[in-house]
Amino acid sequence: MGDVLHGTGIGRGIAVGTVLRMPEPLPEPADDTSALTPDAEKERARASLAAAAAIIRLRGERAGGSAKEVLEAQAFMAEDPTLIDDVGVRIDSGKTAERAVYEAFAAFRDLLVSMGGYMGERATDLDDVSQRVVAHLRGVAAPGVPDPEHPFVLVARDLAPADTALLDLSKVLALVTSDGGPTSHTAILAREKSIVAVVGVTGALELADSTEIVVDAATGDVTVAPDEATRAAALARAAELKAARSAATGPGALADGTPVPLLANLGSADGAADAVEKGAEGVGLFRTEFLFLDSATAPTVEEQKAQYVRLLQAFPGKKVVVRALDAGADKPLSFLNDAAEENPALGLRGLRALRANEPILRDQLRALAEADAETDADVWVMAPMVSTVEETRYFTALARQLGLKTAGVMVEVPSSALLADRILADADFASIGTNDLTQYTLAADRLLGSVASFQDPWHPAVLKLVGEVGKAGRTTGKPVGICGEAAADPLLAVVLVGLGATTLSMSPSALADVRAELARFTLDEARRFADLALSANSAVEARAAVTSAATP
Amino acid sequence: MGDVLHGTGIGRGIAVGTVLRMPEPLPEPADDTSALTPDAEKERARASLAAAAAIIRLRGERAGGSAKEVLEAQAFMAEDPTLIDDVGVRIDSGKTAERAVYEAFAAFRDLLVSMGGYMGERATDLDDVSQRVVAHLRGVAAPGVPDPEHPFVLVARDLAPADTALLDLSKVLALVTSDGGPTSHTAILAREKSIVAVVGVTGALELADSTEIVVDAATGDVTVAPDEATRAAALARAAELKAARSAATGPGALADGTPVPLLANLGSADGAADAVEKGAEGVGLFRTEFLFLDSATAPTVEEQKAQYVRLLQAFPGKKVVVRALDAGADKPLSFLNDAAEENPALGLRGLRALRANEPILRDQLRALAEADAETDADVWVMAPMVSTVEETRYFTALARQLGLKTAGVMVEVPSSALLADRILADADFASIGTNDLTQYTLAADRLLGSVASFQDPWHPAVLKLVGEVGKAGRTTGKPVGICGEAAADPLLAVVLVGLGATTLSMSPSALADVRAELARFTLDEARRFADLALSANSAVEARAAVTSAATP
Repeated sequence: MGDVLHGTGIGRGIAVGTVLRMPEPLPEPADDTSALTPDAEKERARASLAAAAAIIRLRGERAGGSAKEVLEAQAFMAEDPTLIDDVGVRIDSGKTAERAVYEAFAAFRDLLVSMGGYMGERATDLDDVSQRVVAHLRGVAAPGVPDPEHPFVLVARDLAPADTALLDLSKVLALVTSDGGPTSHTAILAREKSIVAVVGVTGALELADSTEIVVDAATGDVTVAPDEATRAAALARAAELKAARSAATGPGALADGTPVPLLANLGSADGAADAVEKGAEGVGLFRTEFLFLDSATAPTVEEQKAQYVRLLQAFPGKKVVVRALDAGADKPLSFLNDAAEENPALGLRGLRALRANEPILRDQLRALAEADAETDADVWVMAPMVSTVEETRYFTALARQLGLKTAGVMVEVPSSALLADRILADADFASIGTNDLTQYTLAADRLLGSVASFQDPWHPAVLKLVGEVGKAGRTTGKPVGICGEAAADPLLAVVLVGLGATTLSMSPSALADVRAELARFTLDEARRFADLALSANSAVEARAAVTSAATP
Repeated sequence: MGDVLHGTGIGRGIAVGTVLRMPEPLPEPADDTSALTPDAEKERARASLAAAAAIIRLRGERAGGSAKEVLEAQAFMAEDPTLIDDVGVRIDSGKTAERAVYEAFAAFRDLLVSMGGYMGERATDLDDVSQRVVAHLRGVAAPGVPDPEHPFVLVARDLAPADTALLDLSKVLALVTSDGGPTSHTAILAREKSIVAVVGVTGALELADSTEIVVDAATGDVTVAPDEATRAAALARAAELKAARSAATGPGALADGTPVPLLANLGSADGAADAVEKGAEGVGLFRTEFLFLDSATAPTVEEQKAQYVRLLQAFPGKKVVVRALDAGADKPLSFLNDAAEENPALGLRGLRALRANEPILRDQLRALAEADAETDADVWVMAPMVSTVEETRYFTALARQLGLKTAGVMVEVPSSALLADRILADADFASIGTNDLTQYTLAADRLLGSVASFQDPWHPAVLKLVGEVGKAGRTTGKPVGICGEAAADPLLAVVLVGLGATTLSMSPSALADVRAELARFTLDEARRFADLALSANSAVEARAAVTSAATP
């Protein structure tokens, strides 16, 4: 059996396949004297700049959402007259179009970087555009997501939303990244689409194309050039997992019969049918950002209502928790957020931004109340990024005033977890967003590779905060849900129930695994696991202690 | 008596004086056709751009530190050839130098802003430079900090480090700002320099120059055009405070004799003599950033040692707590930090950055150990921004291995407070940084005006975390200090002792007020105040409940 690399597995899947790496950047064009006339070189440069802008814009159109915005800005760079003039000046001095483009973009990039601070932020975008133009001039494939005819294991540093927007997921057997933690974009994508993934794998970038590997998310191991026994065992386990997943059905419950309703996280009404088919007992988190992301202004009450009605009709008699618009941080909206914040994750986001733009919030709540009146689902509404009792009172009062019966808050800021008893005195329910809660509790940006090791919801400090909310839920008799990525980790889901969570919400594809795991343990066992995890010194120790206690 | 405006007072001082406002931005230059020849206009533009660059650079030299870097970058903008060319082109089309400068800077600014995201960050710097050049062309005073001959109350939106660098503090009677919270730069400056200040005052920007106002930090009230009785009462209270402050002497202690050593926060060895004179019983936080900020590389062991020796010699037999280099977030170092982080406050900062650059940390600890061996102070060392037990073990092991006897950690991340029992099993002591702890607990950037209302260390969630550390300190028998701004708020200082803090460290100018306040209450009273604050729903309610209980 070959070398084994290690990382953090997402879920419990396993896959066997051959490596395909994200292409490396193009080498720097040589500074040769051009054999063509300056006019001919200029024509080449003009054509490739225009082509690059067109291709980038097209990718943006197809991707939509925030990727579209990023790509639009890149297209704009390829069309910038100052840059095009600079390319021309360099060609006049005898350079090739490739070299002139390379130098002009690099000079502008350096200017931005030299201006210090956060100006450098978009410098890498200039590099992307430059690479794409040079690739077009050379007639080679532009760096970016590969698109072969056969299934493959994608190996990359990390995947950005712009990368995955056009990725043909039907061909991706597994994802292996060298950077990124359990809540990186790659990990979230893997969970949502049920793709086997191991992230943060040291040595991943040394894997050569076409190497066969086994990717085991349960252990976080990536076995290079497996021997026949390893390969066969992996394929057998993959088949077993597939069978187990389809065997677990019915409502979520512990082994002693304690019900733990399993709900779906949905990003639009499109996923509703799939969620129902996978056994979702309702919706625990309906994200409403999709209604706002593609437009320069907020949608009308009528437009919103139509979408909410579509969603609610899919869940007659079932609970549907709708989250008010959560804009800001990594998903800014131009009409709502201030682009100049130094630390957008600590800025005017979530409910704070809605409060500063109350008409948008009022319209959304009104649209939801109208949709509620016309359908039979049990509609709950909650505010994102609530950090104080006062904000809780503000939101629930407004929601009730506008006709919504059940109003609660997301607990994703440490202060809300610490004051959960007072927050639940007013709110009808709490829903814990473990991703942001982990980010703030450990003070580590969940999208930043260099601090990815801190972003682990198994950390005892995070679990202690979850336990505070669970305790407040029991005291006040109010429900406490989990809607962060943590709920999709089957064993962690058991711990969360032990800490007092009463419902779990996740990507529909994760429901089967979590349902099967909950059925293995009683509430007493879940509470014992929770105590084990709470008394650990680290996330790694917590996970190891519970894994060992849960192993038959 | 006139109108009363309200804000958040810093400390308990009171002052009477006349308003002087930060100048408003210059109006947009009219788009008139120039009466001069293009060459004459170009010469004017060239001269004013050069003059502005020189003046900005000079201000930077005089300011030093991070302000210098900001101002250097601004000077660079005024000398940018692309911009100067663009000004020339606009003058050739018949515009005045003023208008051409205005338009060229605005066009470049718009280009940056249109590129989206954080590119806009430095756009306001371009506006500053443009304003300065246009002011020079017009022969009027550039916008910026006023510098009159007489004492005044400075009224501003908020003060940036670049503004205050050249402010003649001897003439500033008080500071009033419309933006900013209790840990804004203005507030920190006010505490450090013992300047009366009220921040976040709605309506402050409507105050006219030369209006007389009473600024009362104890109540947060700004009284406009006071009547004679109000004026006289204010002056009497100012005199009383001055007397009370000089009356309280000796070591810090509660009314029942419980000792609470009062230590100084120092940013360099220069402040040592002043701290001793003001009665500091040692140093609770020695910031070492000054050793690193002005250079492109880390200083040598010898250079550092010389500074540490200078500091330690000022405190023979006394405790001196030195914090390892805390770079990143709002104080980045080019050789240590990655400028491209999306949320630097949640990035590779503090101990994380030191660990990624361990030779710098080793040099610092070695220099400190050598200085310790040559002097008689009781040297303690601590790591900034520790978030896990594992980091605690790493730092304390390294410090002890390099010869330092007492090694501890800063608790400024919620996870560290939540796991304080496990952290203090290893660390010799903990020191709570209330500013960052508040920022992370409430998930609100402490330097961002729009979320300033969240940045209040009286928040019960923050106090609960302080209480966790206090409890862990009692259980393990290890000292727990406070070195954030909260310790300088006299009444909050009493609450912090009630929560388990064993020492308090602050700006030397705050020592007298805190010493006087501690002497008013017993430990039982402090604990009762702590319970009151913990059971409040908000920072405002906590402050009000304790203030009312403490009022005789």
